[in-house]
Amino acid sequence: MDVALRVVALREKRRVVKLIAVLVGATPAAELFANRQAEACRAVGIDYELKKLSAGATQTELAGVMHKLNEDASVTGIMLHLPLPEHLNATDLQYAIDRWKDVEGVNPANIGYVVYGQRALVPFTAASCVKLVRATGTDLKGAEAVVVGASQIVGKPVALLLMQELATVCVCNVATKDLMLHTQRADILVVAVGKAGLIGPEHVKAGAIVIDVGINRVTQPDGTKKTVGDVQFDAVAEKAGWITPVPGGVGPMTVAILLRNTVRAAELLAGMTAG
Amino acid sequence: MDVALRVVALREKRRVVKLIAVLVGATPAAELFANRQAEACRAVGIDYELKKLSAGATQTELAGVMHKLNEDASVTGIMLHLPLPEHLNATDLQYAIDRWKDVEGVNPANIGYVVYGQRALVPFTAASCVKLVRATGTDLKGAEAVVVGASQIVGKPVALLLMQELATVCVCNVATKDLMLHTQRADILVVAVGKAGLIGPEHVKAGAIVIDVGINRVTQPDGTKKTVGDVQFDAVAEKAGWITPVPGGVGPMTVAILLRNTVRAAELLAGMTAG
Repeated sequence: MDVALRVVALREKRRVVKLIAVLVGATPAAELFANRQAEACRAVGIDYELKKLSAGATQTELAGVMHKLNEDASVTGIMLHLPLPEHLNATDLQYAIDRWKDVEGVNPANIGYVVYGQRALVPFTAASCVKLVRATGTDLKGAEAVVVGASQIVGKPVALLLMQELATVCVCNVATKDLMLHTQRADILVVAVGKAGLIGPEHVKAGAIVIDVGINRVTQPDGTKKTVGDVQFDAVAEKAGWITPVPGGVGPMTVAILLRNTVRAAELLAGMTAG
Repeated sequence: MDVALRVVALREKRRVVKLIAVLVGATPAAELFANRQAEACRAVGIDYELKKLSAGATQTELAGVMHKLNEDASVTGIMLHLPLPEHLNATDLQYAIDRWKDVEGVNPANIGYVVYGQRALVPFTAASCVKLVRATGTDLKGAEAVVVGASQIVGKPVALLLMQELATVCVCNVATKDLMLHTQRADILVVAVGKAGLIGPEHVKAGAIVIDVGINRVTQPDGTKKTVGDVQFDAVAEKAGWITPVPGGVGPMTVAILLRNTVRAAELLAGMTAG
């Protein structure tokens, strides 16, 4: 069902969907990003609140904030904007988020449930990649999937989600000796490295589905800056069956998944408290 | 440091290492297995207690047992023997184990920490596989690793641990279209399917490291039964560089890892309570 309709259904049961986003040491770029999320939330009826803390906030202070938000029954979703200032331990804070309110799916328990083949609140960037693959109508079962980049936030979770769909999944990283050997076989190629233009047409099988998670700021010959992915879009687009652009592919989908997770968290909480 | 010495070091700080194994609906085979673990624990100075419940125990009852063991400060490690009777939900009970006492590393949070590149209490069978690979002295970084079988208990966790070592990791499953294409490339081949003789010499690269996690009971031509792995041992042994036998390979190592995790859990708890 549509996210907005699910919010209405919750309201009818007097359940408000309320997302709190915690932002530590706000920069203009981070605030812009947060504002876009706020707009998306409001558009579907989700209450959104940005909780800003100074860059000097301590780990204990932040853990206290998380604890309060966990305990606050009016809050149904919590997210923590990354990156955090260097003196803070992000993993410990993500673990501090109640796993039922963890709308980004970053609590280790929620990633653990992905290993266990469950889908309570899945890591949202990884879920976006899989949703984009599914949108092509391809059969994931038995498909050869290659994930380039074994990061904790994208590479590993997306590999786990693809395994859950019974794809054969190969995960390459910086130490991979022959990257092309793997990518050339891929029916589905997910690239999440953070290196502009890493993947060219020579890496890609004709007709493949290419999901580009990279976001890189590059300086163009005329001196202006531009955001590009990890894939050489124009050249690869001629060979691939499907390809996601940067900007405009995975990014907007993550917002959709965040909304979906936020509503799901509220539904799960409603089920729990009602039961 | 040696596990037995670490137990002594904990005792000197008046910390007792105490493992409780929960067994629901005991069969003679399960009790035999539990007794072997008990002997191994006692040999290194770990207090071991087998808590037996009837096959009719309810989910609520078991959750209550777990809760009590979590709260009991004299208990430093908890494990739950699988399989459980069909009416019980194993994942929910594993999740109910305090993650600091989860010596098998089966709580989704502890598997999640593996995704996050940490190693608090890692899934013990998967950790055994990686320890056996490391024992060969091979460099995991950049190695081509292929895992056959994408199970929650072995395949996925072992893939995550190998990724952590910067191996290029490919996970095959029942839907994989051309298994041999993958296995023939593998420098490290981990097989965890549960199908006797699935992997023959034609699947294996010369000199590869082969870890066989399968445990299968087969009937021999003379009618007697025998335990074998997923790999055709004799034939593959001639081609592989290293190979683990079944029985005798991964099995005994899991006991060693269980002891290590049990001591580590006690050390972590001691650190927490001392801090």
